[in-house]
Amino acid sequence: MAANEDITRVDQNHRRSRAVVHNGLVYTAGQVPDDMSLDITGQARQVLDKIDALLSEAGTDKSRTLTAQVWLSTRDDLAVFNALWDSWVVPGHMPTRICGRVDMNNPDCRVEIQVVAAV
Amino acid sequence: MAANEDITRVDQNHRRSRAVVHNGLVYTAGQVPDDMSLDITGQARQVLDKIDALLSEAGTDKSRTLTAQVWLSTRDDLAVFNALWDSWVVPGHMPTRICGRVDMNNPDCRVEIQVVAAV
Amino acid sequence: MAANEDITRVDQNHRRSRAVVHNGLVYTAGQVPDDMSLDITGQARQVLDKIDALLSEAGTDKSRTLTAQVWLSTRDDLAVFNALWDSWVVPGHMPTRICGRVDMNNPDCRVEIQVVAAV
Repeated sequence: MAANEDITRVDQNHRRSRAVVHNGLVYTAGQVPDDMSLDITGQARQVLDKIDALLSEAGTDKSRTLTAQVWLSTRDDLAVFNALWDSWVVPGHMPTRICGRVDMNNPDCRVEIQVVAAV
Repeated sequence: MAANEDITRVDQNHRRSRAVVHNGLVYTAGQVPDDMSLDITGQARQVLDKIDALLSEAGTDKSRTLTAQVWLSTRDDLAVFNALWDSWVVPGHMPTRICGRVDMNNPDCRVEIQVVAAV
Repeated sequence: MAANEDITRVDQNHRRSRAVVHNGLVYTAGQVPDDMSLDITGQARQVLDKIDALLSEAGTDKSRTLTAQVWLSTRDDLAVFNALWDSWVVPGHMPTRICGRVDMNNPDCRVEIQVVAAV
């Protein structure tokens, strides 16, 4: 196996790291809510909070997000999600985004987000 | 917030940038057609034109695309889309691609594409 | 067209490269099984083998994977897929992952995986 001194892995278990830092970028795993009984507002807040925490752990913050992939389980949540998203992103520091309706692993999961940010 | 002098954001609104340039790469947002009443041919042409324009604005072009994510709303469009795609990409300069059927935010949207290119 | 001496493209046809190497990273295309008549175990093994081969061709290996996108055609395959995945990844070198249910181009395809790895 190749050496990995240039790769930092955050909060890994037997399946995945929650974030990986390499060459000035942090890649997060797809973040899902801790409490999937919540509505889209509650779920999205948990996901965005988790991303903030991961970015902080990697030594950066949401103002340096380059791109985000957003999966929603239903289009019915899009308007509410977008309002929360719009208040989360930092004016003047918008990432690119791709957002679509995807069935997530847990049927109760309404939102999953993955980001790449500059450290 | 961390400084962002090393990140260039193209055509941003309150939600997203259409492209972000950092450390020699440009990340586009998922590009969708302007006119969603068009068939797959018309929609795909609009999307590919928009990507060309974004790459140009970032100082690069499609010959330097590294990877593309393609979402189609129906498999019925795949053959037609692929023919358009094949005539868009540059022989000898093929990006990697992941392409699947995803429901996009607008139910009339038939295709969404996001690319990462070297600047 | 811009020069491309800094981009290496692996196994390209008229549509896509199977992998692209640039600035210390390799981006694979979404890899699918060669034999789509197989069950999830057989399909996942083929896909993971193909990723191993691409990473090797790019001069790296799975211990240096930064992030992976996994598409499954049905949640029913998730547990079996995860067991195979867990035995494929390298302890202490976990990539980030985003995994969801997506309809792939071939209706018989049960799994598609794309990775980004450090070279």
